[in-house]
Amino acid sequence: MRRGDAAGVEVADLAADGSAVTVVAGLEEFWADAAAHLARPATGPTLAVADVELVPPVLPGARVICIGLNYLKHVAEGSFAESGVPPYPTLFARWTQSLTVDGAEVPVPSNEDGIDWEGEVVAWVGSTLVDADPDTALAAVVGYSAFNDLTSRKAQKLTSQWILGKNGDNSGPLGPLVPAAEVGDLRDGLRVRTRVNGETVQDGRTDEMVYTVGDTLSLISHTFTLRPGDLLATGTPSGVGYARDPQWLLHPGDVVEVDVERIGVLRNTIVGNEAR
Amino acid sequence: MRRGDAAGVEVADLAADGSAVTVVAGLEEFWADAAAHLARPATGPTLAVADVELVPPVLPGARVICIGLNYLKHVAEGSFAESGVPPYPTLFARWTQSLTVDGAEVPVPSNEDGIDWEGEVVAWVGSTLVDADPDTALAAVVGYSAFNDLTSRKAQKLTSQWILGKNGDNSGPLGPLVPAAEVGDLRDGLRVRTRVNGETVQDGRTDEMVYTVGDTLSLISHTFTLRPGDLLATGTPSGVGYARDPQWLLHPGDVVEVDVERIGVLRNTIVGNEAR
Repeated sequence: MRRGDAAGVEVADLAADGSAVTVVAGLEEFWADAAAHLARPATGPTLAVADVELVPPVLPGARVICIGLNYLKHVAEGSFAESGVPPYPTLFARWTQSLTVDGAEVPVPSNEDGIDWEGEVVAWVGSTLVDADPDTALAAVVGYSAFNDLTSRKAQKLTSQWILGKNGDNSGPLGPLVPAAEVGDLRDGLRVRTRVNGETVQDGRTDEMVYTVGDTLSLISHTFTLRPGDLLATGTPSGVGYARDPQWLLHPGDVVEVDVERIGVLRNTIVGNEAR
Repeated sequence: MRRGDAAGVEVADLAADGSAVTVVAGLEEFWADAAAHLARPATGPTLAVADVELVPPVLPGARVICIGLNYLKHVAEGSFAESGVPPYPTLFARWTQSLTVDGAEVPVPSNEDGIDWEGEVVAWVGSTLVDADPDTALAAVVGYSAFNDLTSRKAQKLTSQWILGKNGDNSGPLGPLVPAAEVGDLRDGLRVRTRVNGETVQDGRTDEMVYTVGDTLSLISHTFTLRPGDLLATGTPSGVGYARDPQWLLHPGDVVEVDVERIGVLRNTIVGNEAR
């Protein structure tokens, strides 16, 4: 969160009723030893949520690495269906500027017919990883959050590379970080659901993933060094809007929720391009 | 540059002989009004280059948007040749953590046979752009730098999406920012050459680009809001290593230079994975 009177971002513990936050540490201080900060109670001042601006606890330079095509039924429903399951995790990029929080408004760009939902789970890397094996990589994950990888499909599909359509303003809401110790292992099969105006549109389980968090972070760490604060978005189950017949996209006024078992619910409202 | 005794990054003017820097402003202060800072002489302290660490003048959260396939002869030499020229600029992403400076050492990841060169020009965005037309977008460019988009080809080609192989540690050296007023228009045709151990391997001109800086930034601004400090890498001419017969990649000990007319020369040495 960011205090109204200060430029610096601080990491804080959100009360269960959402009304107050208790400061844990400054953003850089938090990521210097995230595991230790998450293991002890917050000891900083408690502030009313109304008096602060909530922002994701993300270092500006963090990498947001996203897996596409990680649930079999989502591979089968999309435009890559005839290629089958890719032999490695299909990784695309978000920049942190596309991220926002629960409750934020998400604009539809003027040249899109709407935006599409992609409910998923994001993992937070807590330590440096160079040429790590999968077990070491998984052990470096300090927490998970619910994530909505809201997509500008026209921009995504303009060329072979997806990133334009994956970085719209406020297009990446993510929920509070829940410590890994409270979440357990995604291979246990946490339920991931997305609802649009209350109607369930995605309903998958994290044990359907083709590529696990540990395997994927291990692969990445053999090309570039992962650092504390980097994020891995683990891909979305089937049920996205563009693959439906008829196509179903989000328009201003729609409310989209991502609900992940043990991790929480993320709720965002769609607005028009004029909000940019 | 970063002073040895301070955490903060400052933007500085590099003396013509490379021996000293004169401080212009703090990094965030610089990008708050880059055009104004570039239009007047630096007035801060002058320091010996030996006493500072040179780093790119990049905001950690800046987007590094890269155009692939932007020179016709490069399209024809690569693995996308049979698809022809794409109908829109093919945009992929780097994170700022992959960027480094002239003189830096660039490691070859352990699972690559070498790394490949891609000499090019990068444009720096100086103001906010939302739904901008091409002329407005071009006018927002405050400067240009030489850039080497060094690529881990195996990682790039693992799946349909390229970004893993485009974000290796230190894989994006870029040269000092040269004000747009000194560079003129890339459509004038600036010569872009890459040399490996002194041998010229790429020799193109920026007027061969399919997609101009103004058109591309305009397109992007219709999906997400460009902000001061964002970068656009404009693509590489033909002559990359992986498309040669036999293939030619960079190995530890090789020296690679990118030499852009009016903009400068960038020189980097390749090292082994153990340098990570």
